Amino acid sequence: MNLNNNKLNISPRITLVGAGPGDVDLITIKAIKALKTANVVLYDALVNEELLTYAPETATKVFVGKRSGEHSYSQEAVNKLMVDYALNYGHVVRLKGGDPFVFGRGFEELEYAASFNIPTQIVPGISSSVGVPGLQQIPVTHRGLSESFWVVTGTTANGNISEDLYQAAQSKATVVVLMGINKLKEITEIFKARAKNQLPVAVIQSGTTENEKVAIGTIDTIVDLVAEKDIKSPALIVLGEVVSLHPQFKKLKSFYDIAAQG
Amino acid sequence: MNLNNNKLNISPRITLVGAGPGDVDLITIKAIKALKTANVVLYDALVNEELLTYAPETATKVFVGKRSGEHSYSQEAVNKLMVDYALNYGHVVRLKGGDPFVFGRGFEELEYAASFNIPTQIVPGISSSVGVPGLQQIPVTHRGLSESFWVVTGTTANGNISEDLYQAAQSKATVVVLMGINKLKEITEIFKARAKNQLPVAVIQSGTTENEKVAIGTIDTIVDLVAEKDIKSPALIVLGEVVSLHPQFKKLKSFYDIAAQG
Repeated sequence: MNLNNNKLNISPRITLVGAGPGDVDLITIKAIKALKTANVVLYDALVNEELLTYAPETATKVFVGKRSGEHSYSQEAVNKLMVDYALNYGHVVRLKGGDPFVFGRGFEELEYAASFNIPTQIVPGISSSVGVPGLQQIPVTHRGLSESFWVVTGTTANGNISEDLYQAAQSKATVVVLMGINKLKEITEIFKARAKNQLPVAVIQSGTTENEKVAIGTIDTIVDLVAEKDIKSPALIVLGEVVSLHPQFKKLKSFYDIAAQG
Repeated sequence: MNLNNNKLNISPRITLVGAGPGDVDLITIKAIKALKTANVVLYDALVNEELLTYAPETATKVFVGKRSGEHSYSQEAVNKLMVDYALNYGHVVRLKGGDPFVFGRGFEELEYAASFNIPTQIVPGISSSVGVPGLQQIPVTHRGLSESFWVVTGTTANGNISEDLYQAAQSKATVVVLMGINKLKEITEIFKARAKNQLPVAVIQSGTTENEKVAIGTIDTIVDLVAEKDIKSPALIVLGEVVSLHPQFKKLKSFYDIAAQG
């Protein structure tokens, strides 16, 4: 008889784990240690499925994918599933893309678990908001260009652009918009209203994965560039002078400088 | 004869690696792979020295520590050292606390390496700006409380508080200040000028390490709390409604609610 299958011996617990931006090697040792002791893994759409191989073969792996626009599971359903699995199977790893607390609704899951007195742990992950621009050689901060960065969601609970973005467009911060690609045109209009037509902009799709695509331009040109390159969700938008450090932007600039001289 | 010691066979390259916030297990597999092939590791003060054991025993490990206030090496000296080692020994891993591009001056190092045509690679790390609050159960974003977070340096190139912080104090973003603990009083004055006296604030020293200390209060109370708890650099400051989700803040609130009723 396998005592592990005896419900009396089950110690429910939940670990909220950030899986990072996509590259399977951008996972932490701490995340791997959590996965190795998982009885159940609940994972999102943006999580690299190769990471599931760190969990025991016998562990139950459940896809609870959510992408902006197409919710296969409601947040409430995910919460319930997570607690049910913990109570019946033991250690649940809730594996989320990026970091669990960067627009990941991780805290809602923590609170729900706490309401059942289930112990929880947190393993932060590399947020794509910082890691994805960085791997494209766009530093979110750089002396002389940016003393801060501001990460905003493009899609709030009511489906609108966050009000914060109107303020961000007035700031000198590097602005990183997550889940905003479907509102790119509206976002550029906000910056145009602040006369920032020449501000450098990068749009990066599926950063750190084999599907990565990049468009580098300005507020005035980025919408056409993104259409030309057929860049789609999931993608992030970086708006700020630091984008001018990207090799493609430098080439663009020298092309226009030469054209202006000619 | 060991051909690896023959200069003719040296292939200089530099990998800029984020070491994460301090906990040795918050390092990525990608960072470990870089360390395993390092001939030289140049590491900062905020890097956990246990990470050096991932590098070969024969690798040269050089501390180029910089903390705010006490610069043992200038940035220029670090740049030169890094390139000299790459040209003479091969693979240099430049190991930096947190993420290399979050106030890490990583791009300056990349540019310097590029000016010598030395190939470079980037391995992002978990920025303490997101990971440290998260591990304290303070989510930088949370539905109904915060649709964005703004990360600002407390110490700019000229030693002053960033101008961006004055704007941040007017925003609804969660504000995270790195390297700002020595200016905490000035920072709270900026928020008081915006009548944000009751805004919840957390100060976290040495997050994710055994020296971690936390103070939870409001704009009005945080300076005294930090003095009481003897919290010192390195520490980060989180200002925003999301701090009210911290268990200590909830206790604080019910204490005052009871006092008010009494």
